[in-house]
Amino acid sequence: MTSRRDFLQKITLSTGLASLAPTLLSATPATNSAQQPARKLRVAIMGLGSYGTRVAKAMKDCQSAELVGIVTGSPEKIPVWKKEYNIPDKNVYNYETVGQMKNNPDIDVVYVITPNSLHAKHVMQVAAAGKHVICEKPMADTAANARKMIAACEKAGVKLLIGYRLHFEPYTRKVIEMIQAGEMGKLNYIDNYQGFKIGDPTQWRLKKSLAGGGALMDVGIYCLNAARYLSNEEPIWVTAQETKTDPVKFAEVDETIQFQLGFPSGLVASCATSYNIRFERLYAQGDKGFAELSPAYGYGPIKGRTHKGPLDEPVVTHQTAQMDGMADIILNNKTIDPPVDGQEGLKDMIVLDAIYESIRKGSAKMKL
Amino acid sequence: MTSRRDFLQKITLSTGLASLAPTLLSATPATNSAQQPARKLRVAIMGLGSYGTRVAKAMKDCQSAELVGIVTGSPEKIPVWKKEYNIPDKNVYNYETVGQMKNNPDIDVVYVITPNSLHAKHVMQVAAAGKHVICEKPMADTAANARKMIAACEKAGVKLLIGYRLHFEPYTRKVIEMIQAGEMGKLNYIDNYQGFKIGDPTQWRLKKSLAGGGALMDVGIYCLNAARYLSNEEPIWVTAQETKTDPVKFAEVDETIQFQLGFPSGLVASCATSYNIRFERLYAQGDKGFAELSPAYGYGPIKGRTHKGPLDEPVVTHQTAQMDGMADIILNNKTIDPPVDGQEGLKDMIVLDAIYESIRKGSAKMKL
Repeated sequence: MTSRRDFLQKITLSTGLASLAPTLLSATPATNSAQQPARKLRVAIMGLGSYGTRVAKAMKDCQSAELVGIVTGSPEKIPVWKKEYNIPDKNVYNYETVGQMKNNPDIDVVYVITPNSLHAKHVMQVAAAGKHVICEKPMADTAANARKMIAACEKAGVKLLIGYRLHFEPYTRKVIEMIQAGEMGKLNYIDNYQGFKIGDPTQWRLKKSLAGGGALMDVGIYCLNAARYLSNEEPIWVTAQETKTDPVKFAEVDETIQFQLGFPSGLVASCATSYNIRFERLYAQGDKGFAELSPAYGYGPIKGRTHKGPLDEPVVTHQTAQMDGMADIILNNKTIDPPVDGQEGLKDMIVLDAIYESIRKGSAKMKL
Repeated sequence: MTSRRDFLQKITLSTGLASLAPTLLSATPATNSAQQPARKLRVAIMGLGSYGTRVAKAMKDCQSAELVGIVTGSPEKIPVWKKEYNIPDKNVYNYETVGQMKNNPDIDVVYVITPNSLHAKHVMQVAAAGKHVICEKPMADTAANARKMIAACEKAGVKLLIGYRLHFEPYTRKVIEMIQAGEMGKLNYIDNYQGFKIGDPTQWRLKKSLAGGGALMDVGIYCLNAARYLSNEEPIWVTAQETKTDPVKFAEVDETIQFQLGFPSGLVASCATSYNIRFERLYAQGDKGFAELSPAYGYGPIKGRTHKGPLDEPVVTHQTAQMDGMADIILNNKTIDPPVDGQEGLKDMIVLDAIYESIRKGSAKMKL
């Protein structure tokens, strides 16, 4: 096991975030410009459900980001969160008062963790309040809404990041780094799948009006996003097939979807996702080697191997690493490769739209 | 490592070939009926190319089958094979004289190992000569030809087996056995791929008139056949996508094909095959466990693991096991599950036809 410090040095090298390490490694304030002392990114979470709670807990270990505010429609949660995270009254908002955040200089960014179909509305509200936005993936329910969100953030002059936590995860970064260093040779096959058996049939994830879609939106996006960051190319076509074994539970959203991607180099990807199959794999096959992560997309620990043997990367809390990394992007204008911005989110949304269109058209090949 | 004897006892149990073991284990002739003493299956090979040579060499270790004859269009090969395998002049045929085999009581069966598109013609010639036939996979170039072959063999009263060597291979049988015993629970995902980088651009495998197709016909059929024997179901739909990076080398046949299958239970399969990617995997995911073979389809050694840990099955020469098993099927009317007969071959051909049709129709979903 490598130490957290080793990991941070490693991710700095592998991501090219030259100043990430100093920012993240130092608990002592340093100056990052002549005018302004370095400080932590001050985050409000919008949507205090299970994933919002996970992010909040993970942020307790952040070195560059801190939870300072909440936006919630559930008044009963307010005292609990205030106590747990030392949140002052002035940083507590609901969905009607979020616009007033523009008068609050103590919040830098709002992390939108609401149901997918509400992302567009909420991101645009936050942008209008002049705050940077982190939006959980999928960025939206359609590419059209994703474009509106990007335009709104550009107009407001705020940054828009998408909650792609794995871009900051050591095993994932190691595989990306090995591919980019040419260790696999020319990549020619990707084989990704991710799914789980979803429980409570009344949850919002099974309602199209809130989730926008089913397994594909929720976890299939990991396979798609991974195919894109492994390939370092944008797909030129997609095909898809839907299978439904429980038309009652999955009356509104997709249960199982297989989809395939073709890339300009000739690389192809076979992917699958399901709310009724527990399976998980990231796989990249090149002329000279391969990489496999399995588990690959969950909250960890991730396991992996390549043609060189087992991977042994540091095990981190994904959301801690993500929020520290995003602090550096937002506060210090750093970049990460592959990016985690709105344009990256839009690229996934365009393919997700095309997957659903392929299914509507009898699995027809959709050019991208 | 398990001994060969252990394996034969095992395969007997797992296949239900109750009398396979005595036949295979005993070098001493025994009676299998009151009228007739047990004897070896006397085989002629038609087509003395690289795979025909591999089968001939493997048969040297058979206990229930022996190579006694050849059919070849290459006169220069005759003295070499005669010497190597002690083949008498009377058992040497060419493609014009094969009909005369009907007057030769010393040959039981002809193993047709010629280019795919010639299988139909050759199998029908052999059937007309009153000999049983083993036909290498793919059985034919189209399902229509496969049906003609079955009809011809039925009319002639001879058996028709397809060269599905993996049906006799211990790792493959172990996985089938575990699935059938319910150890994986309900199967819900299959992920098979097989490919290699094909060499010599002038070879018959790249000519449509001889090969009938490319990677799909040659090695993709393993993924398809495995999906069928793992699932123990017949697919109800198929979709497919073709990718070509070298339109000169692969001017006549497919280079890379992805295909997907849906089964009545809701099980789905993602498969891929290529003449330009070296990759190989058989994977079955169930509710309660999984099995993976990789390598899975080559001549061995095959490696595998399940949710219970690594598999450790005997390593056999596939073609030796196949020919001993087929001797028992032909001489003793034994059956094997999954079967290796013409109907099994036809089921694959129907899906292969539909895969090519899906590609012609823009990856449209083809009902089966």
